[in-house]
Amino acid sequence: MRVPVPIRGPFSLPLRLFGIKISRMNPNLCTICESMFTRVKKSKQVPIQATVLFADVRGYTTLSEDAVAADIAEMLHGFYDDCAEAIWERDGIVNKFIGDAVLAIFNFPITQSDHARQAVLAAMDIQKRCSQKMKLQNPDGSGKNLSLGIGIGIHSGEASIGEVGTAYKDFTIIGSVVNTASRLQSAANAKEVLVTNDVYQQVSDLFPDCESRAYALKGLEKPVTAYSLS
Amino acid sequence: MRVPVPIRGPFSLPLRLFGIKISRMNPNLCTICESMFTRVKKSKQVPIQATVLFADVRGYTTLSEDAVAADIAEMLHGFYDDCAEAIWERDGIVNKFIGDAVLAIFNFPITQSDHARQAVLAAMDIQKRCSQKMKLQNPDGSGKNLSLGIGIGIHSGEASIGEVGTAYKDFTIIGSVVNTASRLQSAANAKEVLVTNDVYQQVSDLFPDCESRAYALKGLEKPVTAYSLS
Repeated sequence: MRVPVPIRGPFSLPLRLFGIKISRMNPNLCTICESMFTRVKKSKQVPIQATVLFADVRGYTTLSEDAVAADIAEMLHGFYDDCAEAIWERDGIVNKFIGDAVLAIFNFPITQSDHARQAVLAAMDIQKRCSQKMKLQNPDGSGKNLSLGIGIGIHSGEASIGEVGTAYKDFTIIGSVVNTASRLQSAANAKEVLVTNDVYQQVSDLFPDCESRAYALKGLEKPVTAYSLS
Repeated sequence: MRVPVPIRGPFSLPLRLFGIKISRMNPNLCTICESMFTRVKKSKQVPIQATVLFADVRGYTTLSEDAVAADIAEMLHGFYDDCAEAIWERDGIVNKFIGDAVLAIFNFPITQSDHARQAVLAAMDIQKRCSQKMKLQNPDGSGKNLSLGIGIGIHSGEASIGEVGTAYKDFTIIGSVVNTASRLQSAANAKEVLVTNDVYQQVSDLFPDCESRAYALKGLEKPVTAYSLS
């Protein structure tokens, strides 16, 4: 749906009565896509071509055992903001944050012919923004800062997007593309961006010297060929 | 805050202008706790005693490689609804669903002196509801149904709850209690509920014959003593 909807200012007031406001997933969108999905699309789920990006903070579990909760919250604030800005600048949506991880989608609802490329650019931007800021005071009391790295996984392909649940409705994306991206992210080291062959073909001009490697990923039967971008 | 807020009917209309409506996390609550947290609590994060429950579908990644997206969506619909109802009946909140996993919190914003016990009862209820319904057509074409199990992890303790992020605001819970519950869930087998000693002490009368075991969990330095309830 490409209809201009007033989401800011006095004209947005009557729309708010119907629950239409700025989407949390991208401030340039309204909530029609997420909260009225079934009505707009006439189906609970629709198939789309999309790129899925997962990013998370390496060593977060170990850290959260020792570090001060306020320090962790401060670090997460920075991480959420950096991720959201990098993703929004490339017209992607932040589907959700869970703890120290983010799930972003490119090519829905704003369609982009180069969605895989945009996702990679967002990933490089997240790495760049976070490399300076992701620091926590070392809980060993030495006064030194611990530097935290981000691991990112990206995959492109066909997925199913829409609403899940009736009692609790959630806007989310389903399919093996999501699971592969999530597992690649788990395999990525700190400061690494791992992408599948489908994604690499769209950005090979930017990273001409990357070599592929086969990764055995948890839950996936066949090894996945992935490229580490840097 | 314990103020009766009209979230249904005509009196709820003016409140909607300010973004106050039924919370997605629990239909008996309004969104004041989640969207106006900083204003109500005068702080981005507050420390609370809480019980955290993680549940997810075993073998979901393997399945989503082969199974039809529509079948997976149908299975997830049932899972989301069963989880939400079991959690809401015990006054917990569904903080979020991510793919095949759910994160629930007990003792906030509705306080409960027996929050660990309520979480365990919700977990047993989720297992009971899902044991009948979680079936997928076997993608091998044999026509037989695959039965899917749920793995659940529960831990109680001090955590920090509130808003994270400024560009993208999210209501979430932070602390090692969350990570331990999440890792316990990963260690749980299908149809298993794993709880820490802190939780077990609150429900030992219901499960008198459980034996403890030490689990080495990813990212956690020390092994965690846990009980498998059944």
